Amino acid sequence: MSAHFDLLKTDTHTAARRGRLRTRHGVVETPIFMPVGTQGTVKALTPAHLKEIGSQIILGNTYHLNLRPGSERVRALGGLHRFMGWDGPILTDSGGFQVFSLAKLREVREDGIAFQSHLDGANLFLGPREVMQIQANLGSDIAMVIDECPPWPCEREVCARAVERSLRWAGQCRDIARDSGFLAAGHHVFGIVQGSTFDDLRREAAEGLAALDLPGYAVGGVSVGEPEPEMLKQVGAATPFMPADKPRYTMGLGTPPQMLKMIALGVDMFDCVLPSRVARNGLVFTPEGPLNLRNERHKDDPSPISAEVVNYTTSFSRAYLRHLVIAEEMLAGTLLTLHNLHFYLDLMRQAREHIEAGNYFAWHRSWVERYEVGAAERLRKA
Amino acid sequence: MSAHFDLLKTDTHTAARRGRLRTRHGVVETPIFMPVGTQGTVKALTPAHLKEIGSQIILGNTYHLNLRPGSERVRALGGLHRFMGWDGPILTDSGGFQVFSLAKLREVREDGIAFQSHLDGANLFLGPREVMQIQANLGSDIAMVIDECPPWPCEREVCARAVERSLRWAGQCRDIARDSGFLAAGHHVFGIVQGSTFDDLRREAAEGLAALDLPGYAVGGVSVGEPEPEMLKQVGAATPFMPADKPRYTMGLGTPPQMLKMIALGVDMFDCVLPSRVARNGLVFTPEGPLNLRNERHKDDPSPISAEVVNYTTSFSRAYLRHLVIAEEMLAGTLLTLHNLHFYLDLMRQAREHIEAGNYFAWHRSWVERYEVGAAERLRKA
Repeated sequence: MSAHFDLLKTDTHTAARRGRLRTRHGVVETPIFMPVGTQGTVKALTPAHLKEIGSQIILGNTYHLNLRPGSERVRALGGLHRFMGWDGPILTDSGGFQVFSLAKLREVREDGIAFQSHLDGANLFLGPREVMQIQANLGSDIAMVIDECPPWPCEREVCARAVERSLRWAGQCRDIARDSGFLAAGHHVFGIVQGSTFDDLRREAAEGLAALDLPGYAVGGVSVGEPEPEMLKQVGAATPFMPADKPRYTMGLGTPPQMLKMIALGVDMFDCVLPSRVARNGLVFTPEGPLNLRNERHKDDPSPISAEVVNYTTSFSRAYLRHLVIAEEMLAGTLLTLHNLHFYLDLMRQAREHIEAGNYFAWHRSWVERYEVGAAERLRKA
Repeated sequence: MSAHFDLLKTDTHTAARRGRLRTRHGVVETPIFMPVGTQGTVKALTPAHLKEIGSQIILGNTYHLNLRPGSERVRALGGLHRFMGWDGPILTDSGGFQVFSLAKLREVREDGIAFQSHLDGANLFLGPREVMQIQANLGSDIAMVIDECPPWPCEREVCARAVERSLRWAGQCRDIARDSGFLAAGHHVFGIVQGSTFDDLRREAAEGLAALDLPGYAVGGVSVGEPEPEMLKQVGAATPFMPADKPRYTMGLGTPPQMLKMIALGVDMFDCVLPSRVARNGLVFTPEGPLNLRNERHKDDPSPISAEVVNYTTSFSRAYLRHLVIAEEMLAGTLLTLHNLHFYLDLMRQAREHIEAGNYFAWHRSWVERYEVGAAERLRKA
C-alpha cells in the first residue's frame, strides 16, 4: 500500500477496484472521472457548478496554459488553483499529447519535442525539464511525465523507439521532481504507458515505469483513431503490469460504457472532453443512451432529459432545453455541460457503490446493455 | 394609492420615489432594474444565478418568444415562468419595438403592424388583440400595450399620428385585458407614452393614457438615437403627467448614471440589454466607470474588478477574467454578465436605501461624478 493511495477493495469477478487517492488539495474517491479544464476553465461551467455536480478533481492542460496565459504568470498569480478558483485537486497533463494533435511543425528529438505554437507560430520546446517546471509553476497536484505518443496505426520499430524514449524521459521527470522537492512536497508524478497495439511493448513500458516507483500510472496513446475493441485490448494489455498499489488512469477516455468496461479492467481514473464537447452541440447522456436535443420530436416535450437523473438541468423540460439549443443561447452550453458532466460523475459514484457492494460485474453488464439497446432504439427512431 | 402599488416615499429634493409593486409572482421593490431575458433566458445566466445576484423581476420579449418557440407552445408547456424556470415576476414587452428594429418590410396600419419575421421571412401581424393574446399565453405578470415607436428625428405630424394611434391601441389593449379577465386575475397592463421630442405630445400621450386608468405607465421611444440630454428631457417631459400613484418605467435604458438621473425624475423601473451585451465583449462596470478587461494592463493584475463590489465574479482576479475573455471562453460571458447585472441591481438597492434615508440628491450626484471622473481617467490611460 502506498502512503497516498488506499486500495480499499478489489472486485472478485472483475479487476475493478475501489480506491482513495490523497493529494495536496484533498482526497479523491476512485473510480473517478475528471472534468477537463483545458484553458483554466471547465468550458461553460463555474467552479461552483463543478462542486454542485460532485466533481472531486479536474484536469488542466499544460500545453494550452503554457501558451496562454503562460505558466510563469499563473505562478505569479498564486498557482492554477487560485487563478481559476478551484480549491480541489488538479491533474495536469504534460502537454505532449497536444503537441502531437495541435502544434505545427513538430520534431521529436532525443531530448524532447520542438514545435510551433498553434496560436502564433512561436518556436517552442518541451522536454522533461520544461514540462516539470511548467507543472510546478501551475502547482499541479498530479503532474504527468512527458511522453511520445505514436500514431495509430504504427510500425513496431517506430513504437519501440517511442517507448524507449518515453521511458527515459519518465526517469528524467522523476529525478527532476525528486531533486527539486516537488515529490517531497506531496505533489504526485504519474508515468504513462505507451506501446500502441503491441502487447509486449505495452508490458515492457509498464514494467519499465513500475521500476521508477512513481506515485501513479496512466495508459496513453489510446483513443487515437483505433476501433474500440483494439482500444480495450490495449488497456487490458497494460493494466496487469501496472502496480496494483498505485492509481491507474487511462488518458482521454471515453464513452460511458467504455469507462465501465475499463473499470472492469482495473482502471481508476478517467478524463475526456467528450461529454462537454457533445453538450455544446445539443447531445445529452441518459441511462438509455445519448439523446439529441436538436431533434424535432422534443419540441413540445415537457419531460426532463431523464426521470432518473437529478441535477439542475433535469429541472427543465426537453422542450425548453431544445429551444435554447436551437436559439443558440449560451445557457444551452452551460446547462447541457452541467448535465453531461454530472452524468459522468454520477456514473462513477454508482460504480464505486457497486464495487463496494460486490456486484460490479452484473451491474455494469446490465447498465451497458440498457444503454446500448436504448441508443440503438433512438437511432432507429431518429 | 393603487391596490397593487405602494408609494412608500417621495424624495423632497428630487422626484425620486421609493415604491413597492405587487404582482402575481411576488413583490418588486422599486426603483428596480429588470434583467432582459429575450429568448426565454437572460443570456449566459441560469435562473439560480439571477436569484443569487438579487434579481426581483425579469423581462421577456414577446417578439422573439412568439417567433420561437411560439407563445402557444409556451402556454402548453405551462407558461413562461415554468418554461424558463423563473418563479419571480416577469414583464413582457408587446413586441412592437422589435418589429421596428428587427423585422423586415413592416407596414403600420390602423389596426396594427404587418411585418416579416427576421428569422424566416414569414408574414406576421401584431395588433392589440394579438399582443394581448401572446402575453396572456406567456403568462406575463406585466404586459405592455402595443404602440408605434416613431424614429428619431421625427416630423411632428408623423409623431402626432403615432401618438394618436398608440393611444387608441392602448385603449383596445385595456378593453381586451378587462373583458378577458386578464386584469381581474391580477396581471397588470402598462401603457406607453410616446411623443418623441415634442413636449406637448408627450404630455398629451401621458394624459390620454392616464385616463385609461392602467396599472402602470412607461416612457417609450427614448434611446432611439437621440443624444443623452435630449433623452433625459423627454423623460422629464413625460413623468410629471404620468400618474404618481402608478409605477413608471422607461423602456430600454440605460447607463448607470442615466438610471440614477431618471430615478431623480421620478422613474421606478428600468430594463436594458447594455450590461449583458458589453459583458459579452469584456467590459465590466465599477463605481469608477467601466473597465475594459481586454486591456493589456490587466494581464498580471491579481486584484478584483472592484474591491467594493462583492459577487461571485469579484472573487476572481482581473488577470483571470482577462484570460477568459482573450481565450474566448464561455465562462467569460457568464462571469462578466453576472457581475454587470449584479452591479445594476446593487445600484438600484443603493438608490432605494438613499431615497429612504432622504439623501438621494447628494448621493446620486456624488456617485455619478465619481463614475464619470473615473471613466474619463480610464479613457485617458487606455
